[in-house]
Amino acid sequence: MSPQPLHGKRILVTQADVFMGPDLCAVLAEQGASVIADTQSMVEPEAPTAALTDAGPIDVLVVNLAVPAPTTLATEASDAEWADTFAAMVHPLQRLVRAALPAMIARRSGKILLMGSASALRGMKRASTYSAARGAQLAYIQAVGVEVAPHQVQVNAIAQNFVENPTYFPTEVQAHPKFQERLKREVPLGRLVGAREDAAFAAYLCSDAANCFVGQVFPVCGGWVAR
Amino acid sequence: MSPQPLHGKRILVTQADVFMGPDLCAVLAEQGASVIADTQSMVEPEAPTAALTDAGPIDVLVVNLAVPAPTTLATEASDAEWADTFAAMVHPLQRLVRAALPAMIARRSGKILLMGSASALRGMKRASTYSAARGAQLAYIQAVGVEVAPHQVQVNAIAQNFVENPTYFPTEVQAHPKFQERLKREVPLGRLVGAREDAAFAAYLCSDAANCFVGQVFPVCGGWVAR
Amino acid sequence: MSPQPLHGKRILVTQADVFMGPDLCAVLAEQGASVIADTQSMVEPEAPTAALTDAGPIDVLVVNLAVPAPTTLATEASDAEWADTFAAMVHPLQRLVRAALPAMIARRSGKILLMGSASALRGMKRASTYSAARGAQLAYIQAVGVEVAPHQVQVNAIAQNFVENPTYFPTEVQAHPKFQERLKREVPLGRLVGAREDAAFAAYLCSDAANCFVGQVFPVCGGWVAR
Amino acid sequence: MSPQPLHGKRILVTQADVFMGPDLCAVLAEQGASVIADTQSMVEPEAPTAALTDAGPIDVLVVNLAVPAPTTLATEASDAEWADTFAAMVHPLQRLVRAALPAMIARRSGKILLMGSASALRGMKRASTYSAARGAQLAYIQAVGVEVAPHQVQVNAIAQNFVENPTYFPTEVQAHPKFQERLKREVPLGRLVGAREDAAFAAYLCSDAANCFVGQVFPVCGGWVAR
Repeated sequence: MSPQPLHGKRILVTQADVFMGPDLCAVLAEQGASVIADTQSMVEPEAPTAALTDAGPIDVLVVNLAVPAPTTLATEASDAEWADTFAAMVHPLQRLVRAALPAMIARRSGKILLMGSASALRGMKRASTYSAARGAQLAYIQAVGVEVAPHQVQVNAIAQNFVENPTYFPTEVQAHPKFQERLKREVPLGRLVGAREDAAFAAYLCSDAANCFVGQVFPVCGGWVAR
Repeated sequence: MSPQPLHGKRILVTQADVFMGPDLCAVLAEQGASVIADTQSMVEPEAPTAALTDAGPIDVLVVNLAVPAPTTLATEASDAEWADTFAAMVHPLQRLVRAALPAMIARRSGKILLMGSASALRGMKRASTYSAARGAQLAYIQAVGVEVAPHQVQVNAIAQNFVENPTYFPTEVQAHPKFQERLKREVPLGRLVGAREDAAFAAYLCSDAANCFVGQVFPVCGGWVAR
Repeated sequence: MSPQPLHGKRILVTQADVFMGPDLCAVLAEQGASVIADTQSMVEPEAPTAALTDAGPIDVLVVNLAVPAPTTLATEASDAEWADTFAAMVHPLQRLVRAALPAMIARRSGKILLMGSASALRGMKRASTYSAARGAQLAYIQAVGVEVAPHQVQVNAIAQNFVENPTYFPTEVQAHPKFQERLKREVPLGRLVGAREDAAFAAYLCSDAANCFVGQVFPVCGGWVAR
Repeated sequence: MSPQPLHGKRILVTQADVFMGPDLCAVLAEQGASVIADTQSMVEPEAPTAALTDAGPIDVLVVNLAVPAPTTLATEASDAEWADTFAAMVHPLQRLVRAALPAMIARRSGKILLMGSASALRGMKRASTYSAARGAQLAYIQAVGVEVAPHQVQVNAIAQNFVENPTYFPTEVQAHPKFQERLKREVPLGRLVGAREDAAFAAYLCSDAANCFVGQVFPVCGGWVAR
């Protein structure tokens, strides 16, 4: 195996300063990729196309979208919370994928990887808005993955939860004894998945070794869901 | 078993003139329910609350939302197609559930059933927009179902595909020999699920017999997905 | 809906004195079925065929097989424990189905319902032998269901857990405060599913209303798994 | 990334001359592992322990078990076919895992990877015996994975189908035009997954990078199942 399985690959990572962004950029670069770390907000309708234009030709698009997760009850989730969450995580996904695919299809090569969430695979309290947005993402990836597979373009997703990252599990949360108890109780792994463990798996899915995966959703959540 | 398992239940069915609406209303009424068949569009933000206010007290809300399914390629799906699909199927679901839950929680009894789609469970070509919207629905139902279970309120979903209905499988489509061949090839059942079969299962999930189900997604698709 | 949706149906229930047997027999009979409650052990290779011969012509076979669940660690599970568990739950399933199918296929009508377990869908500690046997059951049902659907024969399974029954949750276990705490913590429903709730769902799946289901696995476990 | 992510790892591969064995051994060795390629039959009850004793201390056990897949109808599958299939694929899995775990638990490090089958995840005709055996395997792995995770031992499975290998897709099958048509129709990838693609993913799951996975089932089947 090459020490640099991503050598020569140009990979665009969106919202590169939040969620899995920093660790993704570090790990992808260590494996040889030229990483374009885009840090702009993806909320404005023009932003996704702009990010792709700025990036120039790419081999892989890593869709890393995050928003502070609302923890309101379903009875109290406002239209604004809903709209903002979808504006941050759902609509940009479609715009990014739509903008990235034509060049990939034209040269019959390319990959898109979504950093999605296992909250769409198993119900959680006080997470209805967030789960809905994440559910839209996963179902979209499954459909697009099947559609573009004949063009030799691979579109897949990680569905993560209980992965170390500054957006959802900041240090102060991790330090809380109650949180550590919750991990032992709810997550078979008994700890958070490390950010670099998650990023390394993402890197694998960005490499040529992953040419065989089609519209697949890979849970990375310490056993919180089995598949 | 009572011949009228839904006797005395007031059930609101939304968009009662499309998708599964007509058969749902017929079967629910045959089983004793007082059916409120609401036929207004649920797109306007005020419509869901208005429908619930118009309906008066209800025991069960059946969220039946449909829009002609776009068949565009992912590369060609416009912002407008995306927004319209979510406006018809996703945002109204949240508004309907949010408006219906407080009374159900207050009296510690009530059910919400979504007529969702298996397109969120398995990728299909030329269905990215539709699948994404249906994926948001299912993940939302899973999360809300877990959240409100302690209040004795049940929130579940049918995830259907290849079910006879005028919106997605009009008579002229069904009559086409190519469509019948596709059924034999892709659907283990070898035929469309009958509209009344689907509605009967929905009726079961609206009855007291279904008090044990929590945020569950029930495929009804002739074996197209196994679970 | 008929008060007797199973009127005229002859239904064989195996091991009718354990697991879900007693409640199944009661509920099926209340819904009009002629229930043949077979209480012999299914371990001997000849027992399944004998039970079917004894029963005479049947419309539905309910495969209710149980064995006290071993709680050994994987490192300590003996060959004998493994063999006994498979002899009680796996091999008889195949023999029962193989013996029941030809008559059903010949008259193009019939149903087989397995009372299976959700332990095959989600990992549990100290349950490796039991889960393995239950996993064999569910995968077998999925395969046979798809194979015989063209003959108008329906083969499906319930995958239950946390359902009230004398074999796995005897009264003394239920009475234990620690067990009640575990239910609140691990099962979104917050209680055991009632034996009659489970049996009612089984009855639905035995009725003509369920002609549309093919090799499907239905979790009944209070939300412990979502689908 | 190291060019030799498996450097220093001793990996035992069972039935190393069939199914995925040859490609697994090649790829694991290329990545630096010391591969112990055991080619004896695992059917005899003593064989698993003997294989582990012969191998000496190992870091990873790759359970590669195969038997020519029966293609009989469910109505025609004999007790002998059933017993032979379970004797080849199910009972040895338990014996291998039981024999390998104590040393791994004692040193708080080790991995077991099952080369399993997606036939346990989706029904197929004429595959009931084989699917049942494969279903026992996957459910077993899920349960053991959760049980031993606290000991820092990882137990996971690949669930493959439509992967190039001499046991199930020999060259003459692949060459058949009807088979190629079937691939295009049934498998979104449109081709068999390459044996080395599958082996590379297995190698990843054998490496330290995969310390975060617990009792997880990874489909590798060209999109035939989505997760």
